[in-house]
Amino acid sequence: MSMVSDKFAKLSVDSAPGQESRQHTSAVDLRGATLEGVPVDFSHGDVDAFSPIPGSLDAFVEGFHVGADQAYTAYRGRQSIRAMLAERLATFTGAPINADRDIILTPGTQGALFLAMGANIARGDKVAIVEPDYFANRKLVAFFDGELVPVPMDYFGTTKGSGLDLSALEESFRSGVTLFLFSNPNNPTGVVYTRDEVVAIAKLAESYGVRVIDDELYARQIFDEREYTHLCGLAMMNPDNLLTIIGPSKTESLSGFRLGVAFGSPTMVDRMEQLQAIVSLRAAGYCQAVFSNWFSEPEGWMAERVALHQAIRDDLFAVLSEAEGFRARLPEGGSYLFPQMPTIDVGLLEFTKALRVQAGVTVTPGTEFGPQFTDCFRINFSQDHQAAVAAIRRTIELVYRYRS
Amino acid sequence: MSMVSDKFAKLSVDSAPGQESRQHTSAVDLRGATLEGVPVDFSHGDVDAFSPIPGSLDAFVEGFHVGADQAYTAYRGRQSIRAMLAERLATFTGAPINADRDIILTPGTQGALFLAMGANIARGDKVAIVEPDYFANRKLVAFFDGELVPVPMDYFGTTKGSGLDLSALEESFRSGVTLFLFSNPNNPTGVVYTRDEVVAIAKLAESYGVRVIDDELYARQIFDEREYTHLCGLAMMNPDNLLTIIGPSKTESLSGFRLGVAFGSPTMVDRMEQLQAIVSLRAAGYCQAVFSNWFSEPEGWMAERVALHQAIRDDLFAVLSEAEGFRARLPEGGSYLFPQMPTIDVGLLEFTKALRVQAGVTVTPGTEFGPQFTDCFRINFSQDHQAAVAAIRRTIELVYRYRS
Repeated sequence: MSMVSDKFAKLSVDSAPGQESRQHTSAVDLRGATLEGVPVDFSHGDVDAFSPIPGSLDAFVEGFHVGADQAYTAYRGRQSIRAMLAERLATFTGAPINADRDIILTPGTQGALFLAMGANIARGDKVAIVEPDYFANRKLVAFFDGELVPVPMDYFGTTKGSGLDLSALEESFRSGVTLFLFSNPNNPTGVVYTRDEVVAIAKLAESYGVRVIDDELYARQIFDEREYTHLCGLAMMNPDNLLTIIGPSKTESLSGFRLGVAFGSPTMVDRMEQLQAIVSLRAAGYCQAVFSNWFSEPEGWMAERVALHQAIRDDLFAVLSEAEGFRARLPEGGSYLFPQMPTIDVGLLEFTKALRVQAGVTVTPGTEFGPQFTDCFRINFSQDHQAAVAAIRRTIELVYRYRS
Repeated sequence: MSMVSDKFAKLSVDSAPGQESRQHTSAVDLRGATLEGVPVDFSHGDVDAFSPIPGSLDAFVEGFHVGADQAYTAYRGRQSIRAMLAERLATFTGAPINADRDIILTPGTQGALFLAMGANIARGDKVAIVEPDYFANRKLVAFFDGELVPVPMDYFGTTKGSGLDLSALEESFRSGVTLFLFSNPNNPTGVVYTRDEVVAIAKLAESYGVRVIDDELYARQIFDEREYTHLCGLAMMNPDNLLTIIGPSKTESLSGFRLGVAFGSPTMVDRMEQLQAIVSLRAAGYCQAVFSNWFSEPEGWMAERVALHQAIRDDLFAVLSEAEGFRARLPEGGSYLFPQMPTIDVGLLEFTKALRVQAGVTVTPGTEFGPQFTDCFRINFSQDHQAAVAAIRRTIELVYRYRS
């Protein structure tokens, strides 16, 4: 099994969000008394604090009662649901979407990402990935035997835009990159790419013939009424070279149904369906019915949800900004904060374990998002507001106990 | 994209079960009048004819109301559900199962199969596959860049056992096969491996150190009170070299929830979880709750379900046995029949399209199960009883129109 072992060594999930309960914590260096408080799992959003779109369960029940037509859909998803979503997503993004050809329903956006990467990467293909960016991106390149070409994003170096190094991006394209994957808003920093940046990405991709996967999972949760630019809406790229990914697992709290969508390139969508056929056949048939309420939420529901998240963001950011030795950039969209800590005298993974044991706070180590982020951690602040603020205070207090 | 194109050329889903509605049928050679009757889609079971385990929807609703703990489970599935299933599956198979270490919940058994194959196959690894066997097995080997080593099963040559060529199996192991995958009952023929055959497989695998994946999807639907032997229950192999796959999508009609299970080898389960983390994170959280009624069905419910399927099997088999030029083996388990037709003067794919257009009958071409099965088709007879019998009569009539 040696070759398989090598491959899986790159895919470790020991520090992946949600897996913390499976870690061994016996050897952790604990310092001082336990910090009491409501436990907060910042590794993902709390659907008890922010519940699913109203009517989601009813839509599921209705789907169940439809019976066979809903249980067994085409691998790319039920036609009537694709048609409905194609229209809504075209309105949202400004890009035309053909329901038969250009869209596939997937088991979560993770499913979309896996299928999209599998549809594009052959052994040895160069794939450009932003650092920092969603932790699975790196693992997917490794799994499909691609060659990772990291492109730095200096998110502390600017407050206007993401800080993506566009020269490095062009250099990567010039060196033979065939695929570029990025998330906007960026996961884990929450920065939103400016229109100029998105236009620059489109121009470079078009000029070098590079395919692009634009992960817009958090595109509906933008703060401060900031402008958001959909790459697909610009219509500046060959449409067959561009795929957009989005889903209702985050802001809309439908993660328990495992639903996602990818739309754009017909070539990629076809391949994704071929792959879906051997991966898991389809997004769970009855769950697909729950899409009916997405982009059709009750009047004001989304606006209120975004405002509530913005308020949590503001409080957490204020606490972090006052904490000596900490540094954070204000998230412009999404539910993530990616603070930098002062230097500590234990390893990052050991610290995050200690934090969970001693303070009841679960965070995701920065190294999941790029090997250089050894002094950062990510939190998902879609949590109970007061519990989240208290938890970040405990986190800061514990960091100081381990400070060098 | 040339290397990716090559890869996807091997994964065509145009004739895959459930995808028929996406086929182009304009160029099909239609002969004679339409054969009227209730349309029957034999490509998969009909959950309107055989509904899900009673209480399944209630279990889902209950899971939804649990909230965050059910929405976000470990990638291998919620601990309490794994514990429950480990116990029930140990009772069913006779193999000990450690809930923390030896079992993973997956999005359908297709999900289990994909993860299991991905956990075992590195580029160039030799993988033995029975012919005929489940169509995705071949595609999975291709996708993971393994080398397919077909092992013939002469299911017409015997009525005692599967007809698996054990010498060919040993020869394949001797030639360097590292993994053997088979389904029992066999898909598409419905034959059940005898105890002697299963023992022989165990001995060969143990002797050559070959890993085995035993797909027992239909192991609860065995006819005529035939003996069924769980390979894992024999305890004749290194437990870390054996993985068993099963799920509630077929006999139990829970396919719309996308649920499956794999248990056995801790090494394989660990890797499957690592892969799950980048494939689709987990079986949909709320859906996992539906496992609660599995192996805990109302008294007599499963026995009745199996009896009803056996009755359909008997009627279809009788019709096929009387049809001149047709040949079929009586299925001993599962919901599939794999008849051989008399020679026709159009290609198999063209015929199956004509059958759908002219007789409202959807079947899966034999070539999905091995390139040599050009005169066979598979039907899933988990259908309305009378509609299925009528549909097989129409099928026979249409075959005769195309007879050479």
